[in-house]
Amino acid sequence: MNSFGYRLRLTTFGESHGAGIGCVLDGVPAGLKIDETFIQSDLDRRKPKSDRVGSTKRNESDRAQILSGVFEGVCTGAPIAIFIANENAKSGDYDELRDVFRPGHADFSWFAKYGVRDHRGGGRSSARESAARVGAGAIAKLILNEIGAKVQSGVLAIGDVWGEKLDFNYAQTSPIFALDRYREAEQIAAIEAARNDGDSIGATVKILASGIPAGLGEPLYGKLDAKLAEALMGINAVKAVEIGAGTRAAALRGSQNNDQIGSSGFLTDNAGGILGGVSAGTPIYATISFKPTPSIHKTQKTVDIRANEREISIKGRHDSCVGVRGGVVCEAMTALVLADALLANLGSKTAHIKAIYGDKK
Amino acid sequence: MNSFGYRLRLTTFGESHGAGIGCVLDGVPAGLKIDETFIQSDLDRRKPKSDRVGSTKRNESDRAQILSGVFEGVCTGAPIAIFIANENAKSGDYDELRDVFRPGHADFSWFAKYGVRDHRGGGRSSARESAARVGAGAIAKLILNEIGAKVQSGVLAIGDVWGEKLDFNYAQTSPIFALDRYREAEQIAAIEAARNDGDSIGATVKILASGIPAGLGEPLYGKLDAKLAEALMGINAVKAVEIGAGTRAAALRGSQNNDQIGSSGFLTDNAGGILGGVSAGTPIYATISFKPTPSIHKTQKTVDIRANEREISIKGRHDSCVGVRGGVVCEAMTALVLADALLANLGSKTAHIKAIYGDKK
Amino acid sequence: MNSFGYRLRLTTFGESHGAGIGCVLDGVPAGLKIDETFIQSDLDRRKPKSDRVGSTKRNESDRAQILSGVFEGVCTGAPIAIFIANENAKSGDYDELRDVFRPGHADFSWFAKYGVRDHRGGGRSSARESAARVGAGAIAKLILNEIGAKVQSGVLAIGDVWGEKLDFNYAQTSPIFALDRYREAEQIAAIEAARNDGDSIGATVKILASGIPAGLGEPLYGKLDAKLAEALMGINAVKAVEIGAGTRAAALRGSQNNDQIGSSGFLTDNAGGILGGVSAGTPIYATISFKPTPSIHKTQKTVDIRANEREISIKGRHDSCVGVRGGVVCEAMTALVLADALLANLGSKTAHIKAIYGDKK
Amino acid sequence: MNSFGYRLRLTTFGESHGAGIGCVLDGVPAGLKIDETFIQSDLDRRKPKSDRVGSTKRNESDRAQILSGVFEGVCTGAPIAIFIANENAKSGDYDELRDVFRPGHADFSWFAKYGVRDHRGGGRSSARESAARVGAGAIAKLILNEIGAKVQSGVLAIGDVWGEKLDFNYAQTSPIFALDRYREAEQIAAIEAARNDGDSIGATVKILASGIPAGLGEPLYGKLDAKLAEALMGINAVKAVEIGAGTRAAALRGSQNNDQIGSSGFLTDNAGGILGGVSAGTPIYATISFKPTPSIHKTQKTVDIRANEREISIKGRHDSCVGVRGGVVCEAMTALVLADALLANLGSKTAHIKAIYGDKK
Repeated sequence: MNSFGYRLRLTTFGESHGAGIGCVLDGVPAGLKIDETFIQSDLDRRKPKSDRVGSTKRNESDRAQILSGVFEGVCTGAPIAIFIANENAKSGDYDELRDVFRPGHADFSWFAKYGVRDHRGGGRSSARESAARVGAGAIAKLILNEIGAKVQSGVLAIGDVWGEKLDFNYAQTSPIFALDRYREAEQIAAIEAARNDGDSIGATVKILASGIPAGLGEPLYGKLDAKLAEALMGINAVKAVEIGAGTRAAALRGSQNNDQIGSSGFLTDNAGGILGGVSAGTPIYATISFKPTPSIHKTQKTVDIRANEREISIKGRHDSCVGVRGGVVCEAMTALVLADALLANLGSKTAHIKAIYGDKK
Repeated sequence: MNSFGYRLRLTTFGESHGAGIGCVLDGVPAGLKIDETFIQSDLDRRKPKSDRVGSTKRNESDRAQILSGVFEGVCTGAPIAIFIANENAKSGDYDELRDVFRPGHADFSWFAKYGVRDHRGGGRSSARESAARVGAGAIAKLILNEIGAKVQSGVLAIGDVWGEKLDFNYAQTSPIFALDRYREAEQIAAIEAARNDGDSIGATVKILASGIPAGLGEPLYGKLDAKLAEALMGINAVKAVEIGAGTRAAALRGSQNNDQIGSSGFLTDNAGGILGGVSAGTPIYATISFKPTPSIHKTQKTVDIRANEREISIKGRHDSCVGVRGGVVCEAMTALVLADALLANLGSKTAHIKAIYGDKK
Repeated sequence: MNSFGYRLRLTTFGESHGAGIGCVLDGVPAGLKIDETFIQSDLDRRKPKSDRVGSTKRNESDRAQILSGVFEGVCTGAPIAIFIANENAKSGDYDELRDVFRPGHADFSWFAKYGVRDHRGGGRSSARESAARVGAGAIAKLILNEIGAKVQSGVLAIGDVWGEKLDFNYAQTSPIFALDRYREAEQIAAIEAARNDGDSIGATVKILASGIPAGLGEPLYGKLDAKLAEALMGINAVKAVEIGAGTRAAALRGSQNNDQIGSSGFLTDNAGGILGGVSAGTPIYATISFKPTPSIHKTQKTVDIRANEREISIKGRHDSCVGVRGGVVCEAMTALVLADALLANLGSKTAHIKAIYGDKK
Repeated sequence: MNSFGYRLRLTTFGESHGAGIGCVLDGVPAGLKIDETFIQSDLDRRKPKSDRVGSTKRNESDRAQILSGVFEGVCTGAPIAIFIANENAKSGDYDELRDVFRPGHADFSWFAKYGVRDHRGGGRSSARESAARVGAGAIAKLILNEIGAKVQSGVLAIGDVWGEKLDFNYAQTSPIFALDRYREAEQIAAIEAARNDGDSIGATVKILASGIPAGLGEPLYGKLDAKLAEALMGINAVKAVEIGAGTRAAALRGSQNNDQIGSSGFLTDNAGGILGGVSAGTPIYATISFKPTPSIHKTQKTVDIRANEREISIKGRHDSCVGVRGGVVCEAMTALVLADALLANLGSKTAHIKAIYGDKK
């Protein structure tokens, strides 16, 4: 319920306005060097910043404290627990939301489920929980790095302003993680226009994984694309996941969509690097659609927990485009899925058993 | 790996040209009446038929045999095993594919994973396995029926011929499960044109679940939308899954996308019936993009297992639009996810415990 | 619920008097040669036989049919399904038990759970289900055989007639799988005395696994001894599981119980080959206590489903000492646990990752 | 690997000499009142104390900090994280053990598995981790308390000094949790004699659960007795688990061992409250054998990580009878298993579904 993954297993805990956010990452191979600076740098990319366009003004240092599993800089095979204290929660901002369901938020449905609410900042449903995902995802990247694989992300579109010339390295330094430097200004303008209107805006993110060997993913109910879809759709505000050509593939004919094969590899890449749910050895890519942040200043109709009609204008401090920082979370979840698949694939052939334990037959 | 679900758990087995296809469905509540006629009718909808436009000509009766778990027409709480014998496998059709990787198929990536191939009809990777999903999905529907909920599906688009006036009841009787009766003829023509060219074509499917109570889905890593995405993306040939407004949500502003709430319920439905990963009590809908069937008669470039370049024209008997019958599989997977969520939600509140075991405190 | 294991996962189905008993074994490494003769020979050891002392007279051929996962004699990595038809069920024997709870059986508690009963031969709760375990266990042994490891079992005691000179090879050919050939006659006599009295008798079984490398078992909640305890206690009629010195260890001092270590290995073996839940590289052994078969001809007090007092004398055909054939099931479950641990251990170190995928760092 | 349970799921982390020990307990029903005083009182029972006979002198306050999942004293349905800081770790005591494997400990086998060691106080393998189990177990008891069920434990034997007149209430206040007040002095003397000899001693513990309704436990691979065996055998130093009559059942005849049934219930209780793996509605009891603490002052032979022979005399501060405090851990693990079974059983019948969601059929 609050855990994800099979062989590399993430469990998270914490709320927006409680003591903090944390996670336990289990199944990390012993001997892995745990580079805390690297973990922190990923957390810093996700972190709310006053100078990050589209980001909330909540000021959190998001300092990760490793509580277990690492001894003298190396993973011992024990579970790695990470804790990130909440420092800048302003619960008072939420007092008037105590009994009201915010449109587009988890409030209504979670209350139906649990009958109890931690209304402060959305409680457990807050996007703040994604800090735990990013911390764990950084460790997953360290695992992938052992075989020279990596995961990158960037913003493809803000609203209907689409990037065309995609550059994942550029995205790293862009204030909105834009993939297309030539559309970045227009995309920033779209965010600011929404914010100025007391509104928010959606975004489309792309992720790219390279160096992933062929053969990862477990047929038929642990397919790599299915696991990516689960991981990405499970991120707050995501409404669509496309692998490779995605929705466009449905409009094509087989002769257009099939990636034919030559002696030096696939001639095209509509599949997004996954065939039959298993990695094909080519770059893996996916496209993720984020809805606009549901918290807006504009007045909206809603009801309270006694079903009385109400009007609300949400104050608080919110991202005006949750997809911007959401891309970093997509990257983390992708890394977790791929590192998990890497480990789960061990033992898929008898050759693996003999390579590790010796051939004694 | 070959299992799906948490509290209602499906395990499937079997290959396209082996003894048959089967499944074990575990966690079905005792006392449920198992209507074998209903199960068979769902299998018959998925079944390849010579008169089904877009379907393979392989002639299988797809007769489900219940091997266990049912006594005097009622589920005993024991696992229900279903077996569907293969009757019309023509393995000879595949002899020339023994060493060759078909473009767009699982052949290359699965061989990288396992180093062994059952090349006959795609072996385990064949869409024939979906018969097991449909059989199990029918039982999931019987569970949902206990609380008056149901799942329907239909074809929204064939290639780029989109339906507009959607009618899920009409789709049931349409030869291509078309949702829009006024576009059905044009959609059929698109399939036939592809087939006449020795080609295939993609399709877009929509699923609709109604009567689902609010509160289903497990935050944060068992979210209902994430589980639907996993289940649907895991179906052969699916390349995109959208919940509610899907990719369109990314182009909107918050004030456009948020579903405001009145005293009689939500005023719009962009969320697709799911908020914060939990059902909101409104109809749940999703859109699924199927790539065109990869098996085509047209000549394609490929390689064999020794990396020699080859050309192939795939003979065999194949669906020219895998999305047509794929919709029935989407329906089954959706039913499995929802029935699983229904059961998993039991115990979410202490009130459930007291309702079942009595309040002894 | 009806599945067992993590990386090597067994799912079983079927009832005593239904169509048959079956299983799906998932996670078998591709490339493993599946020796059907070997599988059948293990099933034959468990099989009820008229000349097996202590066995029921029910005459079943227990012929295993492999339905999937094997192509040209080799596992493809797909799940292996096995089906064993019921041939000699005499449901009429159970008509008078339709409404009555047999003492010592699952009848009362399962009816409380499900409210529905397949009373014929105990339905799903019948020891006949163990045929599926034995079939799957034989495949687990084939996996262990890849690294030269094996599992054996034998009967240590019948009632209070204990063996002393233990010989696991002798046990294979003994009609009661006796470990001590010098006590075998006395042990057989104890069974026959019980049977002649219309009664049954308990037994104690020992299992031994050799060739298991050090390092298997997952701390702290997948410990090898904990998983063995679960697997063995889950066998019908088992009431105690002891690892190594077992209950005797509780009476010792640390200086007596600790296995000291020399340069050529451990100097004693009280631990039973497992330390801290992880294999130590020495032989693993455990002791399992089977209660006497609850089905006896002697008259017993009981109630029916309407809580009326009743007296019953159980007819049917039953083992008079369920522990005799139970040892073969212990062997199978032990093999499943160990093969699972062997696979799950892959990836415990970064060295494994580099050995399989290459060191690209 | 570091998680336990199905519907109520515990994940623990932490090492003996790291920042602390913690856990995440997931699946606690929303609305449950979380009594922190009660949780602390259970931790205090397990806590090392200078005046607890047989306990280490390590002085830890074992103060549980709840990091998440509780809002205004009530569980919100979110995961409950608990952290217990290490305050009195003396890592210097372990410097000389850095390269040496202590007999009877996890050192050798875990090093074989991971190739990396946190040698300080046994690292992750330390019994200190059981504090997390006890904290989580206390919450499990609160769940059981909702239906009036409870779990108790006590010491049956120290070495071969056995209690006879068992009183679970008395055990609560006994300095060694003795069940028999008349043997307590003799049992204490046995511990002190061992300690004075620089040695340690084993113990046998009994647990009792009352108020558990009939019908809990999941056939056939989630049986209640199998899950108890797994949970109890997984506790450090446990070498045997017996349910009900346990090993004694193997020496009996069916007519002696079967619990016959009258209109007012079972006439005897050899089964230990579990039949066919499912609770029978009668008290559940089990017997657990703890080996003597492996850490002893007496000189022992061992090897170092370079396989050189060594002699060691373990200094540190250790329990001389780990079974004394171990009983509290047995109690916690039993509560976790039972509360999990309580939740997992929801949905076993269609009647449950209708009771919770309404009968809409």
